Amino acid sequence: MNDKLEHADAEELQAHLEEVQELLAKHRLVEGLVHRQEMPRHDLVEDLVHKQHLGQMHARLDKMHPADIAYILEALPPDDRLVVWDLVRAERDGEILLEVSDAVRESLIESMAPAELRAAAESLDTDELADLAPDLPQEVIEDVFRSLSAEEREQLRAAMSYPEDTVGAIMDFDMVTVREDVTLEVVLRYLRRFDELPDHTDQLFVVDRDDRLLGVLPLNVLLVNDPEVEVGTLMQTECAELQPDDFADEAAQAFERYDLVSAPVVDPEHKLVGRVTVNAVVDLIREEAESEQLAQAGLREEEDIFAPVIDSVKNRWAWLAVNLVTAFVASRVIGAFEGSIEKLVALAALMPIVAGIGGNSGNQTITMIVRAIAMGQVQPDALNRLLKKELGVALINGVLWGGLLGMVSWWLYGSAQLGLVMTAAMTLNLLLAALAGVAIPIMRLKLGGDPAIGGSVMITALTDSGGFLIFLGLATLFLL
Amino acid sequence: MNDKLEHADAEELQAHLEEVQELLAKHRLVEGLVHRQEMPRHDLVEDLVHKQHLGQMHARLDKMHPADIAYILEALPPDDRLVVWDLVRAERDGEILLEVSDAVRESLIESMAPAELRAAAESLDTDELADLAPDLPQEVIEDVFRSLSAEEREQLRAAMSYPEDTVGAIMDFDMVTVREDVTLEVVLRYLRRFDELPDHTDQLFVVDRDDRLLGVLPLNVLLVNDPEVEVGTLMQTECAELQPDDFADEAAQAFERYDLVSAPVVDPEHKLVGRVTVNAVVDLIREEAESEQLAQAGLREEEDIFAPVIDSVKNRWAWLAVNLVTAFVASRVIGAFEGSIEKLVALAALMPIVAGIGGNSGNQTITMIVRAIAMGQVQPDALNRLLKKELGVALINGVLWGGLLGMVSWWLYGSAQLGLVMTAAMTLNLLLAALAGVAIPIMRLKLGGDPAIGGSVMITALTDSGGFLIFLGLATLFLL
Repeated sequence: MNDKLEHADAEELQAHLEEVQELLAKHRLVEGLVHRQEMPRHDLVEDLVHKQHLGQMHARLDKMHPADIAYILEALPPDDRLVVWDLVRAERDGEILLEVSDAVRESLIESMAPAELRAAAESLDTDELADLAPDLPQEVIEDVFRSLSAEEREQLRAAMSYPEDTVGAIMDFDMVTVREDVTLEVVLRYLRRFDELPDHTDQLFVVDRDDRLLGVLPLNVLLVNDPEVEVGTLMQTECAELQPDDFADEAAQAFERYDLVSAPVVDPEHKLVGRVTVNAVVDLIREEAESEQLAQAGLREEEDIFAPVIDSVKNRWAWLAVNLVTAFVASRVIGAFEGSIEKLVALAALMPIVAGIGGNSGNQTITMIVRAIAMGQVQPDALNRLLKKELGVALINGVLWGGLLGMVSWWLYGSAQLGLVMTAAMTLNLLLAALAGVAIPIMRLKLGGDPAIGGSVMITALTDSGGFLIFLGLATLFLL
Repeated sequence: MNDKLEHADAEELQAHLEEVQELLAKHRLVEGLVHRQEMPRHDLVEDLVHKQHLGQMHARLDKMHPADIAYILEALPPDDRLVVWDLVRAERDGEILLEVSDAVRESLIESMAPAELRAAAESLDTDELADLAPDLPQEVIEDVFRSLSAEEREQLRAAMSYPEDTVGAIMDFDMVTVREDVTLEVVLRYLRRFDELPDHTDQLFVVDRDDRLLGVLPLNVLLVNDPEVEVGTLMQTECAELQPDDFADEAAQAFERYDLVSAPVVDPEHKLVGRVTVNAVVDLIREEAESEQLAQAGLREEEDIFAPVIDSVKNRWAWLAVNLVTAFVASRVIGAFEGSIEKLVALAALMPIVAGIGGNSGNQTITMIVRAIAMGQVQPDALNRLLKKELGVALINGVLWGGLLGMVSWWLYGSAQLGLVMTAAMTLNLLLAALAGVAIPIMRLKLGGDPAIGGSVMITALTDSGGFLIFLGLATLFLL
């Protein structure tokens, strides 16, 4: 528990960061002077000043919460980051490594000796260790593994065996269990033997002799009832139970729906194997939201903003490649109509408008449908209704915006026929966008894939190529 | 508390939904027969069957958690939704209205009589009432307000006076307070006088005679310590304190950083005025993630997927209008080069590739920068470094992809010069995208706006028009 540490609000945190940066600047200044030999090395004054800055920073960091130190490490460029990292007390390394982003964690671990890493890892609980392990060198993991008790090894093995997106990967093992045939008085006395209860203990788990979960006893119930009553008469048997191979997602939804703080995890024999707490769920929800946002822009993962250029290029190239391919296809569609464009060059200027509105409208539809699917609101029999609605929206927009742009084209190029082709092409491309916006995620769903992935690229590709094809095709048919 | 109610996992919830739909289908079938007069109305059999289905559904709904009923209401088309809504017991209306999405809430409230709404509202706590009030008719609110105690009126007034994105708007008033000069034994006896503690009570708030917050006493501390000890010696004075006009966002970050379950809210005189709980924070995080996702696709708000077409058109038109304007500008840029395109029609086919890669790359940069700003990682002195890095990435991508596409153009159109222009235009547009991707969010930040809003539209507009201008301009200069 970090109860004695400062809890900073956003402004205070910013102030901490600035303080650290100031101390770093002073530190660098002295170092710079020494380096340029304007001051003799090992000069008494330099040494004192130097130590003073680092000492101040050390004292500052000691009082800070690990999450706040993580924040500061992430906000500093790599060289400053390592200066600060060296000043953090070794026994706190582990918890801070858990808090920093993946990219920054890698850079910190690279800077540490195997012995330091071992010490950091050994300060963690097994479920935390499981999170850190994939980033540690093999030799360190093996050493740490040897230092664990048999029970801890079993827990670590279990925690690491579950895929990242399952309940097993986010559960911890800090359950407080009681028996059903004891009184609350006995439970209260039992709890007083703890130095502290695990974080997020809002309920005790009632188990039988074989560790099978019988129910839960919320602390709130424990506290308001007569100490003479037995646990069995008060425990709640209707509680949200998770299984280790449930999707972590679904667990998060249960936490949201039922406002949970913790939930037991049971194996198929109904034995209690762990628990999930709301802080893990909050982290999960935030991470998912972020990775969706990154994926939307075609970034494979969060970047350390100070990462070398080459890392960024690697993170981003796949998306650009996909988009270049789709743009190339669209370009070839235009290429097929070069004859028409040569005869009526206005087509070249107008065609991006037709393609653009289709892409925008299609992305609106697909976002709406993907969201509705994620919330479980799209039933098979709703499909027809949804499609009709989206086609209706597309038709209205087509007549409205297509009509407007048609008139503008007429006015610009003095050809009513060109205006009509423009209106018709925009309407048709909007209808195509609506159809694809409903069909792509639904087909994904039926084929068992994630309806969210890549939908935006596909629909934009379709409405670009489709838009050029429709507009240039109609123009070739009716204008030339 | 809803502890006696079922806690369903995702599959069970789906099964509930299907069960309700089946019962609805049977109900409709009978109604349909009656309607088509194949069965005489008020026929005994019909009446029985009819009642049986509704009765079954009633029983089913009674056992369900309000959040699950909300889910089912959202997944049903409007007419079915109202049938189910009528079957929900009146005293649960309030809590369910709090759970459904805004769009669905509106449709449910429209269907209710003022007396029903009054009853629903009166079943809620003041903080919940504050959330519901904006959607209720004025007369209903006035009636409800009159029925409140003076203290509740004060709370409601306070809760409604805070803007939506502040701590004041998400706090509740269910604090359990104790004095510092009593022993834990006294506290335990005091708690036993409650029927139940408020949800998410993980700590008691220690206040003085004037309600000023002195510290917090976590239940975990209360439970493990000797009952003879006084509260004052155990309470924690270093805790995360919020103020009602703090941004809700920042409170959420504090919950994430410090793994909180609840946090006290104090006014400027340090009086305890409320508390924020983790479930409110989870809802907030989810809502923010969702509204960002919707905003990204230009949807003003979540749509009830069964909403009438006209509502959808209204929700989406603004975005389409903005995009049409930017597309029109891009179209005029092309229009300015119609002469060049007439002479070299290959330009028309190649120009969308130049514009496209700029847009994609710019969106990657802006997403990265906006994210870094949101995490507080962009310090003023980092700006230079970021810009250099993004320009570096753009240059590499330009040489790489631009070079590739330049060669393809050469091969397709047999002109090495055209290939060179293509490569140069792609590189320049990528550099423009990098510059804008860093500059737009940073300028927003400096001008005090939200760096996330509309960045994607602006950068796409810039790289489209810019891409056409650069490519067609270079071609006109060097090829014609």
